[in-house]
Amino acid sequence: MMRQALSTLRISTRGRGFQEITRDVQRCVTQADVQTGLCTLHLQHTSASLLIQENADPDVRRDFERFFARLVPDGDPLFIHTAEGEDDMPAHVRTALTTVNLSVPVAEGRLCLGTWQGLYVWEHRRAPHTRSVVVHIIGEDR
Amino acid sequence: MMRQALSTLRISTRGRGFQEITRDVQRCVTQADVQTGLCTLHLQHTSASLLIQENADPDVRRDFERFFARLVPDGDPLFIHTAEGEDDMPAHVRTALTTVNLSVPVAEGRLCLGTWQGLYVWEHRRAPHTRSVVVHIIGEDR
Amino acid sequence: MMRQALSTLRISTRGRGFQEITRDVQRCVTQADVQTGLCTLHLQHTSASLLIQENADPDVRRDFERFFARLVPDGDPLFIHTAEGEDDMPAHVRTALTTVNLSVPVAEGRLCLGTWQGLYVWEHRRAPHTRSVVVHIIGEDR
Repeated sequence: MMRQALSTLRISTRGRGFQEITRDVQRCVTQADVQTGLCTLHLQHTSASLLIQENADPDVRRDFERFFARLVPDGDPLFIHTAEGEDDMPAHVRTALTTVNLSVPVAEGRLCLGTWQGLYVWEHRRAPHTRSVVVHIIGEDR
Repeated sequence: MMRQALSTLRISTRGRGFQEITRDVQRCVTQADVQTGLCTLHLQHTSASLLIQENADPDVRRDFERFFARLVPDGDPLFIHTAEGEDDMPAHVRTALTTVNLSVPVAEGRLCLGTWQGLYVWEHRRAPHTRSVVVHIIGEDR
Repeated sequence: MMRQALSTLRISTRGRGFQEITRDVQRCVTQADVQTGLCTLHLQHTSASLLIQENADPDVRRDFERFFARLVPDGDPLFIHTAEGEDDMPAHVRTALTTVNLSVPVAEGRLCLGTWQGLYVWEHRRAPHTRSVVVHIIGEDR
């Protein structure tokens, strides 16, 4: 029978950088007792992203930070909106260039991620934050 | 009982810039009588985007325009495809760097947006256009 | 009655560039016998993207390649992660700037794409690859 589950993950970030949440999301799928279905994540913020990326080599995440620091530098004089500091508007732009929601199919009770894919919250602010990710699951127990 | 609703919003843009659609989408959710579910938006165009961003300070949207005008400038000699004018290909690139579809969970009959999140159609062409957003809702009335 | 279908498309790419998959995905929708519903695609890789873009003028895709080659150049000395060659890290960045999953509503048995929208796998590596796209469909036969 078709069913749904809805929950919220609270993710503590340590400032700018990646926080893997693959296991947390898989746990939600397992608890929902869905074998075949769809899992949608929505991050309720405008200065952090959800990203699916390589989970093997940590250099990949380091290079992501370096690339985005060059593309959208903190303190860029282009920006007017600096209310919360020089990393405020760059964090909004980084978020728009990536995404705040994702949908991953579920098969045999597992997220259908590729071998090298991990799910990450990418914090774009320099200071640590607590980020909320809404997890919606719909599907069947077979 | 699980149900679905499908409708299309017609959004009149005033040329390049942001048009908020949060209320229009919430109205679709309310009319669908879904308490728990998933709302997916799909924009049927290749030169405008859907974006979830800060709804508080209008400077944020202004800075977005400034950043993208620098990153993907109109009339860039790099581009061959200029059939519809010098803002044509830049509009396609801006669309690809952001997105044309989004999925937001629904809880207690409300879109699960964060406090500062608004849903926008981001027009990338200079001229006003009418844009179609397909709204799909699936869920239950409890 | 609400139903689901789950399948995997194997797409052979010819190296960097676009491979249209609109018909392959529509075939999945038709086989699922869903008239109203939602179709979600998830690409199981970190160096190729899914993109919805203009299907009319091939110059558009050519210009996309030119823009991204300038924005994220192969062999950029910024990158540390070069294990698989100088197009390795740029392929990850291009993937993050676009997306690996998409959801398109279905109405009257057809994907609700706009007139000019096509679904593409965008290969970011120079060498040909076989890419897996998981296709999840949920909906009703009316």
